[in-house]
Amino acid sequence: MTARIGLIGLGTMGAMLALNIAEKGFPIAVWNRTTQVTRDFAAGAGELSSRIVPTESLEELVAAIAKPRAIILMVPAGPAVDQQIEALRPLLDPEDLIIDAGNANFHDTDRRAAAASGYRFLGMGVSGGEEGARHGPSIMGGGAREDWDRVAPVLEAISAKYEGIPCATHMGPGGAGHFVKAVHNGIEYADMQMIAEIYGVMRDGLSMKASAVGEVFSAWNAGPLQSYLVEISAAVAKAVDGEKPMLDVILDKAGQKGTGRWTVIEAQNLSSPIPVIEAAVMARNVSARLDERRRGEAEFGAAPMALPPGAVTVAQLEQAMIAGKILCYAQGFDLIVAAGHEFGWDLPLPAIARVWREGCIIRSSMLNDMATALAENPGRNLMLAPFFAAHLKASVPGLRSVVAAGVAHGLAMPALSQGLAWFDMMRTGRSTANMIQGQRDFFGAHGFERLDQPGTGLHGPWGGHMA
Amino acid sequence: MTARIGLIGLGTMGAMLALNIAEKGFPIAVWNRTTQVTRDFAAGAGELSSRIVPTESLEELVAAIAKPRAIILMVPAGPAVDQQIEALRPLLDPEDLIIDAGNANFHDTDRRAAAASGYRFLGMGVSGGEEGARHGPSIMGGGAREDWDRVAPVLEAISAKYEGIPCATHMGPGGAGHFVKAVHNGIEYADMQMIAEIYGVMRDGLSMKASAVGEVFSAWNAGPLQSYLVEISAAVAKAVDGEKPMLDVILDKAGQKGTGRWTVIEAQNLSSPIPVIEAAVMARNVSARLDERRRGEAEFGAAPMALPPGAVTVAQLEQAMIAGKILCYAQGFDLIVAAGHEFGWDLPLPAIARVWREGCIIRSSMLNDMATALAENPGRNLMLAPFFAAHLKASVPGLRSVVAAGVAHGLAMPALSQGLAWFDMMRTGRSTANMIQGQRDFFGAHGFERLDQPGTGLHGPWGGHMA
Repeated sequence: MTARIGLIGLGTMGAMLALNIAEKGFPIAVWNRTTQVTRDFAAGAGELSSRIVPTESLEELVAAIAKPRAIILMVPAGPAVDQQIEALRPLLDPEDLIIDAGNANFHDTDRRAAAASGYRFLGMGVSGGEEGARHGPSIMGGGAREDWDRVAPVLEAISAKYEGIPCATHMGPGGAGHFVKAVHNGIEYADMQMIAEIYGVMRDGLSMKASAVGEVFSAWNAGPLQSYLVEISAAVAKAVDGEKPMLDVILDKAGQKGTGRWTVIEAQNLSSPIPVIEAAVMARNVSARLDERRRGEAEFGAAPMALPPGAVTVAQLEQAMIAGKILCYAQGFDLIVAAGHEFGWDLPLPAIARVWREGCIIRSSMLNDMATALAENPGRNLMLAPFFAAHLKASVPGLRSVVAAGVAHGLAMPALSQGLAWFDMMRTGRSTANMIQGQRDFFGAHGFERLDQPGTGLHGPWGGHMA
Repeated sequence: MTARIGLIGLGTMGAMLALNIAEKGFPIAVWNRTTQVTRDFAAGAGELSSRIVPTESLEELVAAIAKPRAIILMVPAGPAVDQQIEALRPLLDPEDLIIDAGNANFHDTDRRAAAASGYRFLGMGVSGGEEGARHGPSIMGGGAREDWDRVAPVLEAISAKYEGIPCATHMGPGGAGHFVKAVHNGIEYADMQMIAEIYGVMRDGLSMKASAVGEVFSAWNAGPLQSYLVEISAAVAKAVDGEKPMLDVILDKAGQKGTGRWTVIEAQNLSSPIPVIEAAVMARNVSARLDERRRGEAEFGAAPMALPPGAVTVAQLEQAMIAGKILCYAQGFDLIVAAGHEFGWDLPLPAIARVWREGCIIRSSMLNDMATALAENPGRNLMLAPFFAAHLKASVPGLRSVVAAGVAHGLAMPALSQGLAWFDMMRTGRSTANMIQGQRDFFGAHGFERLDQPGTGLHGPWGGHMA
């Protein structure tokens, strides 16, 4: 049996992806550094084993794949990818294709794509966790279009489907796919943080039990907030351990694997404001400082979090989540636009929204509406699209009430409040940055523009820097 | 005449620094790539020219300096520094010292320090703009202690003085000095943004004229907020252009040279939360999107910014600034602690506060109190130091009222509101990150800890990821 494709790295994600490929009818050759892992995988593949070719050396792997070959790498992001490429390189023909499906930083993917010589290279962001890898992930590809086209039949077959449309798309050259995946992950942090903030209002502000919180999330999952993350938040809130709600015993110290930070760093490099995502990453970092937070509570006392009756309604909380989500995604897509300009990528904005509709962690019904709005006018900020502008007009008052209650009662909402601050900045033609420009000119002679005169590099009548 | 020290690069900052050095009694040899610049500089140096040795080649420069030599580079940060080092290297003895006094990224300084072979290398952050360079900057040095000690007499002589104490300190090895300078600049962004936000409340919320705003800043400059930035904000607000307040004609599009972003990026790498600085950098980036803000105002209408009478008092605005400033600096010093741990630097926290007391843009009387608090217990978060905890207890209520009024009336305060959110997070022993940990375990089997049981990598009773 000649394999249609190869795969290196049978960790959880690699194994799930290989089973998915075999299930869709493509013979696949697999190899793992530890041979026993390969044997166990093949032995455990059940009826799919008829389409799996276990191999015990890279030479054997390469020989088992139809030419021109395509080989998926699913090894830990970082140096292991470079080492694996280096080991494969001498065995490949110039038309053979290496596909890095790991969680690479897109700068590394750009570098690897540029360095590819004697073989071809694609970088591919895969979202959806184990479950997605096994039954249908969202796939964001980067590299040469013709290389993508060669493997698209396999990738589209294994990907999630939204109303029959595969969630697998070529985003652009080099690191474009991994970049889009990074923004996905940043948004994932933000969606999770906003849910946690709203959960906090219900728990601490409204004294609701976890099960009642779960019911609210379940109800919201039938409306505009329908999404995988709201759905699983309902399940998490409803889950019990014996008699205790599971949520009540989970330690509030959140981990991170670092992909959220890549998005923030890139937004900095691009001067692109993504305050909701920044606040979400920040909140995780604060959560990790548990001892210091406990010392803070001992010093300053707990906040008077209980809200007066009627101060905030559950309907307002839903509005706050809707507004926060729209504002966060508007920032995320704006970052994608900025990256497209900077890197010379013609990123397909509506297709990005479409590819996120199924298979990935941030999948939601709202992404379908975003795809529609971005298709109408990809260059327009999402908050100005008529559909979302109308949604914002209806939901920002709720967001404002919820944030105001949080400010007054010490319920921290860093992400939702930055969403609101960004909205208020983005609808204010005359900001307060004239003061900053005045200061900068005063101490550093940086110059400014004027509202009433043309010209740049103008100065004020202060002599500070010239004294 | 044999020079005590040399200087390369007679742009504005280099020229001012050279005059400062000469004025303090040290003969200095100078060189600029364009010879005419060197000649003009020497010709314009007046009576200081007796201590200035203009040179017209690198060889001539090196020959003019007493051994072991010390040469300050004041060339644009980036590749120009590497090129200048490369050009100097063959002319130097192993004990000769190159001092990069430009605005280098500290990673570059680390790299240059490690690569120094056949010469010695210091990286030196200099703050204070032209005025500071000429009459006394704040100097943050990094490199080998013995190299610092060799030039400390010159650096201390030219530096700003706080009650007679030189604002020039060795921070640690390699890039430590430039790192401290980067944090300084991040805090500078935050101080400026908080002032702009408070200015906005006065202008748009209280309908105060620029001159009245200036009077408020002047009054505050005699109290706990005494600082260079508040002082110049008063001057900027009071300045007029004919009959018009200068502030009212300055365009509200703020520029940045990028050093604020370095601080944010490093905080991300260190998982260290600095939300006030992040918000300040973000706000500058939003301010630059003037056309989009105007479109936003057209779509959503201006916010109803005018505050009801008595909603916020000027005294509360002062309290908000005091609280915001303490919280911002607590975050900044916390970032410095994190960097010290990560890079193995024994950063002298109280000395950092001391070196910022004079000469630099963020100089303020509060930094003296911070130096005292950090000397008492350098490892303790500044918000928990008794002096500042007491200040926070008195001023956070004002911050809360001001942010609440802003939220309600659409006066964006991204930096002040993130200060408040961080405070509320840092005094909450039980956060909402348990929800995030539940979600992460649900979709990715990332595991969590429990409040009621020991162990890590525990899982909930959901089968999501295992389905």
